[in-house]
Amino acid sequence: MIDLLITYDVSTETPAGRKRLRRVAKVCVAYGQRVQGSVFEVSVSEVQLVALREKLLQEMDPTEDSVRIYRLRQPREKFVEAFGRDGYRDMSAPLIL
Amino acid sequence: MIDLLITYDVSTETPAGRKRLRRVAKVCVAYGQRVQGSVFEVSVSEVQLVALREKLLQEMDPTEDSVRIYRLRQPREKFVEAFGRDGYRDMSAPLIL
Repeated sequence: MIDLLITYDVSTETPAGRKRLRRVAKVCVAYGQRVQGSVFEVSVSEVQLVALREKLLQEMDPTEDSVRIYRLRQPREKFVEAFGRDGYRDMSAPLIL
Repeated sequence: MIDLLITYDVSTETPAGRKRLRRVAKVCVAYGQRVQGSVFEVSVSEVQLVALREKLLQEMDPTEDSVRIYRLRQPREKFVEAFGRDGYRDMSAPLIL
């Protein structure tokens, strides 16, 4: 499986933008989890990646939005640090990076 | 150098949130570029990473915001696809992933 990070930049100031974010989130969450409002960690096969990319391109507005797909290092949990609302890490604890 | 992706989730609905985003952006852009509204690609040494992490933790509100730091695969440009506003890719062209 391939671990991906998908970041979706969309204006949530308009109802249309919020709707696109909801639809993009739905597509991504089918393959993984929402880690921030518009950031998703997903795991896919090569075949699923093709389908996922196609769905994202269908949902986004290419003139308004930006989608970036990063292929992450594995195991993913070894290469990410999370701070704040979704997982504050005590800085006195050993670092994972 | 270490290539990082920093994603910063903050509410931009309040002036305080927008201010934190501006300050976090300023910190990140010192080490790289802003690729989306709250997504940054930076390159740092191990020493700079310590300083960067510390600055981010100073600027963010841990009860309101979320910061995630991903250590990217290198060379970074080989493992990212960008679509839409900041770099629409013709799907008939060869894929980089």
